[in-house]
Amino acid sequence: MKKKAVCLLSGGLDSSVSAYIAKNQDYEIYALTINYGQRHNREIESAKEIATSLNAKKHVLLDVELNKFKGSSLTDRDMNIETNHKIEDIGKIIPSTYVPARNTIFLSIALAFAESINANTVFIGATSTDYSGYPDCRPEYFEAFQKMADVATKNSIEGKKIQIKTPLLYLSKKDIILRGTELNVPFEKTWSCYKGDKLACGRCDSCLLRLKGFKEANIVDPIKYQIDPESE
Amino acid sequence: MKKKAVCLLSGGLDSSVSAYIAKNQDYEIYALTINYGQRHNREIESAKEIATSLNAKKHVLLDVELNKFKGSSLTDRDMNIETNHKIEDIGKIIPSTYVPARNTIFLSIALAFAESINANTVFIGATSTDYSGYPDCRPEYFEAFQKMADVATKNSIEGKKIQIKTPLLYLSKKDIILRGTELNVPFEKTWSCYKGDKLACGRCDSCLLRLKGFKEANIVDPIKYQIDPESE
Repeated sequence: MKKKAVCLLSGGLDSSVSAYIAKNQDYEIYALTINYGQRHNREIESAKEIATSLNAKKHVLLDVELNKFKGSSLTDRDMNIETNHKIEDIGKIIPSTYVPARNTIFLSIALAFAESINANTVFIGATSTDYSGYPDCRPEYFEAFQKMADVATKNSIEGKKIQIKTPLLYLSKKDIILRGTELNVPFEKTWSCYKGDKLACGRCDSCLLRLKGFKEANIVDPIKYQIDPESE
Repeated sequence: MKKKAVCLLSGGLDSSVSAYIAKNQDYEIYALTINYGQRHNREIESAKEIATSLNAKKHVLLDVELNKFKGSSLTDRDMNIETNHKIEDIGKIIPSTYVPARNTIFLSIALAFAESINANTVFIGATSTDYSGYPDCRPEYFEAFQKMADVATKNSIEGKKIQIKTPLLYLSKKDIILRGTELNVPFEKTWSCYKGDKLACGRCDSCLLRLKGFKEANIVDPIKYQIDPESE
């Protein structure tokens, strides 16, 4: 019987590569996508396509209305998403797109899913390099979450711990893209832009980091942008 | 300005006493109730009544469909809820009513709520004495969760940690009821029974622990049961 892994899949580039790494390690994939009230459903549609491409055994879509809480431009339409940051400034301050406790909520739900199907592993595509300065993307955060998970579940009492894997944690965006290329990740199906327009904006932090990664990897990003990245 | 506390409020006896303790400590109460797809909405109705009695500043009801995952008799109607356990056996094994990672999910969402309103404190009415043997009610679990929370949020980076308070952790059910009586907790509005019938069943673990607590406290439980507790 194949090992099972719960893979958090947002529809973005990182979580897609992370799930393809799980697949490459011969796990049976149980994909989990949380609709947390983000501004647009574009990335949920991407997540569905990636789950299909991955041949996931199951794909659970779960709603958690974090937009009932205030404080993040990703869920609060009254706030502006910052654009045109200098690339070297990204990560220095915590931007308005930070969603309080998002990874903690995502990982907790993934833990529940894993326990319910007897999976020993959860994959999350978090990265602490070329990232947006979110506190819950730091290595010390994942270490603390693992220690908590080790005493949180019924499985853990029975000696079957659930391991949180962060295969991208120390990779640059460039290296994530190179790894994804090796694994034939369908980048054209992924969605990174914080906005939900027909074309990616090319100016939010997420677009800027993605464009920089593809450029450094010397690979053409197959998605279309509102601006011509080459002209920048 | 009053200190703010997020109080997890299930509608049960313990979480109600916990929230009244917060109120007694002069916190402004932000109540949080998670509808996680339990069999019945009876306790959600109780939570609303308690939030009103508490004069909560806000009461957020959030749906998280944990019934999409299998493995708990509280969310899976195909499973039976055990009844008629011997009181001394409760807590020795993890019962079918265990919901995978429930407290972790609840606390994570409470953390998000707290951060979004700049609250420094979260109250949860968990108890490790006279409890049902759930792994996520043990002191070591809450210690590990606190350490994780201390590195999880934007607030924590800015030196404003959010403290998870478990005022009932070492209290017996008897002592919880005595404390609740001192604080005028409206026990008649609380709901403990795992089943959602018109009257509490009196036979599930939760009813059995509640009945034992009231008996030991020498206080009459104001709610009605299908059986006459005195006849047992």
